[in-house]
Amino acid sequence: MKSRRNNELAPEQSITAYMARRAEEVNARLETYVPPEIVPPENLHRAMRYSLLGTGKRLRPILVLASGETLGAVADDLMPAACAIEMIHAYSLIHDDLPAMDNDDLRRGRPTCHKAFGEAIAILAGDALLTRAFEVLSSVEAQGKPPDYRKQVRVIREVATAAGTVEALIGGQVADIENENKQVGDSTLEYIHRSKTGAMIKASVVVGGIIAGARDDQIERLAAYGGRIGLAFQVADDILDVTSTSEQLGKTPGKDQAARKATYPAIHGVSASEARARQLVEEAIRIVSGLEANTAILREIARFIIERSS
Amino acid sequence: MKSRRNNELAPEQSITAYMARRAEEVNARLETYVPPEIVPPENLHRAMRYSLLGTGKRLRPILVLASGETLGAVADDLMPAACAIEMIHAYSLIHDDLPAMDNDDLRRGRPTCHKAFGEAIAILAGDALLTRAFEVLSSVEAQGKPPDYRKQVRVIREVATAAGTVEALIGGQVADIENENKQVGDSTLEYIHRSKTGAMIKASVVVGGIIAGARDDQIERLAAYGGRIGLAFQVADDILDVTSTSEQLGKTPGKDQAARKATYPAIHGVSASEARARQLVEEAIRIVSGLEANTAILREIARFIIERSS
Repeated sequence: MKSRRNNELAPEQSITAYMARRAEEVNARLETYVPPEIVPPENLHRAMRYSLLGTGKRLRPILVLASGETLGAVADDLMPAACAIEMIHAYSLIHDDLPAMDNDDLRRGRPTCHKAFGEAIAILAGDALLTRAFEVLSSVEAQGKPPDYRKQVRVIREVATAAGTVEALIGGQVADIENENKQVGDSTLEYIHRSKTGAMIKASVVVGGIIAGARDDQIERLAAYGGRIGLAFQVADDILDVTSTSEQLGKTPGKDQAARKATYPAIHGVSASEARARQLVEEAIRIVSGLEANTAILREIARFIIERSS
Repeated sequence: MKSRRNNELAPEQSITAYMARRAEEVNARLETYVPPEIVPPENLHRAMRYSLLGTGKRLRPILVLASGETLGAVADDLMPAACAIEMIHAYSLIHDDLPAMDNDDLRRGRPTCHKAFGEAIAILAGDALLTRAFEVLSSVEAQGKPPDYRKQVRVIREVATAAGTVEALIGGQVADIENENKQVGDSTLEYIHRSKTGAMIKASVVVGGIIAGARDDQIERLAAYGGRIGLAFQVADDILDVTSTSEQLGKTPGKDQAARKATYPAIHGVSASEARARQLVEEAIRIVSGLEANTAILREIARFIIERSS
């Protein structure tokens, strides 16, 4: 069998199959990055594994891989950062679901972490996944071969900033909570989406570029691509919340509306929201096509983001 | 006025005055590391500043400074790591105080973060201080002059590991919670203390050494010193919880007993606990004296740890 480069799709291969294959690779590696359940504190490690391993789409780590491979990096050098970003995603979901926040009982078709392990362990499991992400990012494995410490520091800074408070993950969650049951305008909504979901998705794409040793103008292009697909992803998520069943979503649908959360469809309706998502994806594709590389996968992923059904 | 090296005490200067002076330096720098309250999300930044800035002893950052300066580093190169470690300490206190954990109303003489800002913001402020710590550790300021990226990565890894789950900060908190209302033996108690308090105190001393470019045998000596004063600190804390008033402590005394927490005095009584703390400090002093350097301050800090009144 001829080997194929990771940044090319076989003619017969669908993007869905590609995403599934990469998700499996990510899952296999994630498995090794959290202590096994027999290591004390057993219950905490069980909770971390429960929330991290399982049925996620692995969009963020796949973006790290796809972006990095597009510019010449190998999966082995990308995997620690890819997994660290997924750990941060998992921590943010655990904390978002807590009774004091969104108070959700169901996540990916299973009880949320605090429903399964209690609130104290859920808070600490989130803390632990966030902390472990930085341990993985600063590990020997994440240094590259040959080691490039400067690059490693830059990746850590990129991830920490995207997970932070200023137009970033935590800031977005705060704005989301504070605007529940409020009429919000377009700019607030876009601030929430850009921060809460967009920042980490953009960072995933950028981190791949950094590890691949991309030039500054390429990094800028990746950031512009990442920003647009990040926003498109959240718009698509909001649409799915309105149009899907619980079974498709693996979480309670209609929750946003019930909590009077700010969403695109709530402000603009479903069809205008779909048009906005398509526009963002077209922009992303146009931008990323300007990289001097084979961008087939990155373009396919952009389309996948609004065509997925869960 | 003759300038004095930071790792020497003036004959007339008490260790208490030294600690107060260094705490002020740390406070001034911490101030710059959290976004001001006018930057959105304002309420979150207010909560972060409320819990981070204020009246802490700043023991951990002072240990980074004292350890690093003892081996030749300058305060400017040590300050980012010192402040990052204090941020992690502040995050751990916010989360420990939450209703799902220790459910404390009072911390350092003021309402705890969730009492002042609500539970959602308190959880996110903790998350944000932890995240910001890694942003500071990976910042340009923390690279040293001239930049030493390899050292910087090593510091990040040391801190992330000490803040983690395996014989480290989070693991200790889990064991602490899980052993409430249980009869625990000596080894469990020492595991809790070594993990919950000891790991970050040890890391503070070690990180100072790393930044100073200490040799491996010196780092080992610093770690052995740090491990002992970390344990001594927690034993002293347990004793203070039994023997102090609320005013002295700035938090509710007798809480440990009320929650039937595992403590040294509960198992061994106050006077045997005092003897154990003294023994640990004497060992720490003997060990650190073997560094080929002026260790006056590190020896004084070891004594201070069990002689303090709050």
